[in-house]
Amino acid sequence: MSGNISYVDDCENMAKFLLKQLRELGATAESRPIGTHTLDGKEVPLPPVIISSIGNDPKKKTLLIYGHYDVQPALKEDGWLYEPFELTPDPKGTGKLYGRGSTDDKGPVMGWLNVLEAHKNLGIELPVNMKMCFEGMEESGSENLDKFIESEKDGFFAGADCMCISDNYWLDTKTPCLTYGLRGINYYEIRISGPDRDLHSGVFGGTVHEPMTDLILLMSKLVSPEGQILIPGVKEMIAPVTEDEQKKFEAIHFEMSDIHSAVGGDVTLSNDTVKTLMGRMRNPSLSLHGIEGAFSAVGSKTVIPCSVKGKFSIRLVPNLTIKGVTEHVVKYVNEEFKKIGSKNRCECVLTHGGEPWIADPNHYSYRAAHKATEAVYGQTPDYTREGGSIPVTLDFANILGLNILLLPVGRGDDGAHSTNEKIDTDNYIRGTKLLGTYMYELAAADKSS
Amino acid sequence: MSGNISYVDDCENMAKFLLKQLRELGATAESRPIGTHTLDGKEVPLPPVIISSIGNDPKKKTLLIYGHYDVQPALKEDGWLYEPFELTPDPKGTGKLYGRGSTDDKGPVMGWLNVLEAHKNLGIELPVNMKMCFEGMEESGSENLDKFIESEKDGFFAGADCMCISDNYWLDTKTPCLTYGLRGINYYEIRISGPDRDLHSGVFGGTVHEPMTDLILLMSKLVSPEGQILIPGVKEMIAPVTEDEQKKFEAIHFEMSDIHSAVGGDVTLSNDTVKTLMGRMRNPSLSLHGIEGAFSAVGSKTVIPCSVKGKFSIRLVPNLTIKGVTEHVVKYVNEEFKKIGSKNRCECVLTHGGEPWIADPNHYSYRAAHKATEAVYGQTPDYTREGGSIPVTLDFANILGLNILLLPVGRGDDGAHSTNEKIDTDNYIRGTKLLGTYMYELAAADKSS
Repeated sequence: MSGNISYVDDCENMAKFLLKQLRELGATAESRPIGTHTLDGKEVPLPPVIISSIGNDPKKKTLLIYGHYDVQPALKEDGWLYEPFELTPDPKGTGKLYGRGSTDDKGPVMGWLNVLEAHKNLGIELPVNMKMCFEGMEESGSENLDKFIESEKDGFFAGADCMCISDNYWLDTKTPCLTYGLRGINYYEIRISGPDRDLHSGVFGGTVHEPMTDLILLMSKLVSPEGQILIPGVKEMIAPVTEDEQKKFEAIHFEMSDIHSAVGGDVTLSNDTVKTLMGRMRNPSLSLHGIEGAFSAVGSKTVIPCSVKGKFSIRLVPNLTIKGVTEHVVKYVNEEFKKIGSKNRCECVLTHGGEPWIADPNHYSYRAAHKATEAVYGQTPDYTREGGSIPVTLDFANILGLNILLLPVGRGDDGAHSTNEKIDTDNYIRGTKLLGTYMYELAAADKSS
Repeated sequence: MSGNISYVDDCENMAKFLLKQLRELGATAESRPIGTHTLDGKEVPLPPVIISSIGNDPKKKTLLIYGHYDVQPALKEDGWLYEPFELTPDPKGTGKLYGRGSTDDKGPVMGWLNVLEAHKNLGIELPVNMKMCFEGMEESGSENLDKFIESEKDGFFAGADCMCISDNYWLDTKTPCLTYGLRGINYYEIRISGPDRDLHSGVFGGTVHEPMTDLILLMSKLVSPEGQILIPGVKEMIAPVTEDEQKKFEAIHFEMSDIHSAVGGDVTLSNDTVKTLMGRMRNPSLSLHGIEGAFSAVGSKTVIPCSVKGKFSIRLVPNLTIKGVTEHVVKYVNEEFKKIGSKNRCECVLTHGGEPWIADPNHYSYRAAHKATEAVYGQTPDYTREGGSIPVTLDFANILGLNILLLPVGRGDDGAHSTNEKIDTDNYIRGTKLLGTYMYELAAADKSS
């Protein structure tokens, strides 16, 4: 990484760097175009996907890994301590390595290159066949990656036994974890319209059905102040908690002070760690995000908005589906609107949806990562789920039908999309060891048990 | 009015024009500075108040009139059919006179000048003493006018018996009216804050008390979909409807189709004309205007806003006072927030307030205007109230303690602040006659009955 370069240049440099490195390390490597994107009226090529493989031994398992070489934009003047595109060790000697992409996701990608380099330098054969897929559009919605996976399902990706992605983080700053689930999301708009123009509340207040009154009442019926979803049928869809899950949640290293410091005070719904973790990872949640079309600026405006859109989303967990939840939501909103008896018009629309994802945490790939974590860190990993979505995981899982292990390298305080993103030297070194050890444990794992 | 001039130049020209005209018509006239205003870092003088008087006969009544010579900004390219600062008769011969200020408020001011001119040309003495006050800041909140009235209470304004303002409009397009009331307004913010930064709903949805959930629930408890204010104690403050008032409302010329065409469809709370008119003029109303701090743009954002301000206002009518209503509102919001049991913080704040105003519609000034309307238009005037506020009315009423008659000249469809503002030739001519006739009826009226 060199100083004073933009993140666009950085992206191009990274693609070239990866191709060169992978080839020097004895892997086949190709740069594959994945289409173009319209930017300022011009068609520009999307950053390519770099695919690479080492080994093709039918006696070995084949591990598929994914990473991304693109990063979030960064400028020194945003508040960075050092040049964001120049990896800078903390001069205070804390071991923090500052730089854009240090933890998201160049650091973990370099971890895998380090593993390959060590094997090459020592002249040791890899214990598994490896397929690697590195994209350059992750921070921009992984455009076209799904089509690429689909097109190479029976080509490049054929024969993979399982998959490992290192693109998330530990829950805290000291406990390694394996991540086996992601919540999905359904995003909705309740659209209420009535008058054909905005009205003055002096002239029309008290004479018309005001769209905001209808909307606020409907939005108030979606979720309780305690965070309970009030839409009938949704809670009933939640998969029952198994004994194994309960144990995994109880074992997670987590204190209420962790979340209190993350949000700036005690505003948590519960004071119980397991309830809080389940609230974040295992249960659906409903958030009211805002209203489009109403007055939203500083100050006062005496408007009766004629058309308003209330925005909310529901985080999905097994067995909530985009379709099943939407049926309940739309039915409920329509019924509640009917009760209001308003002459306005109401429509409830799903604007986008993403299914939840969960992997079998007892799969041999997870067992291998569990053993590797114990070997490298001397402690049992937490089994976590992410509250948010990582859409690429879902694409790989759905199209290739593989077990996917999310094996984070960085810590919860790395600040992935923030200024002064960092990775700790210890996480970088032990993270590299973890990936290498996982590879050996995977090779040794019993597929059938 | 000449073409291609800006509304700032227009304002300066109008002040000079008024001074010159008034003096030529035999009135004393002065331009009085009323302070400065900071604009782009510079102190600029506010447009002066023009005060003028004719006659000082202790045997005559003294009538105070008010008008404003400033107008809303206007540019041809805003969508005007003709140059906005050039009065243009509709070439189709409808009698409409297009131009900025034609109805708001230059037309009515010219009406008074026409009355004076006719008397001068005919060599007839006015039947009343007249005091005139024309300001140039009405469209910008009448800055400093209250101080000016206060300072001249025992000076220029001393001795006035009653006041007439022609700066509002008929309710419809065919029925002259006298306006004897204005609603006031209390504008509030409910401010909820909790986390110290905006949170991602994927990571924190389901774990924290979300300020939006609390706010939406509180806002939903303020007003029913039928427009009923749900805050205990507010409805109880409404002055009972007297028989005289009921009759005045029943006599108003108004059809449901008038309001349906004004708002673009049938979204009215009631299908009854008297209920609708009372909803607009005689009852308080509560409108939810919007939320500051939440997501309000087009599209989707999965944010949990950390601090939100819900904005609403209540239109005030007798006997609702700024203070009395605010006590009920703040108490209620605080009690309802307590019921929620949230760990967030809540504050309900009055951001501004304006008292309602009502005049005695049986005052001799109203009786004079009633007779004048019957004489000029051959029909009984409607007695209306405005749903919105005209703060200058309140200032004059409070400081001078006079009965004020709002005597509109223009029609309900004049489009006062819109493009293609107009006054109908018939309203301009008969309006002038109305003002003159009112003056004679006022002179003849029995003060004591």
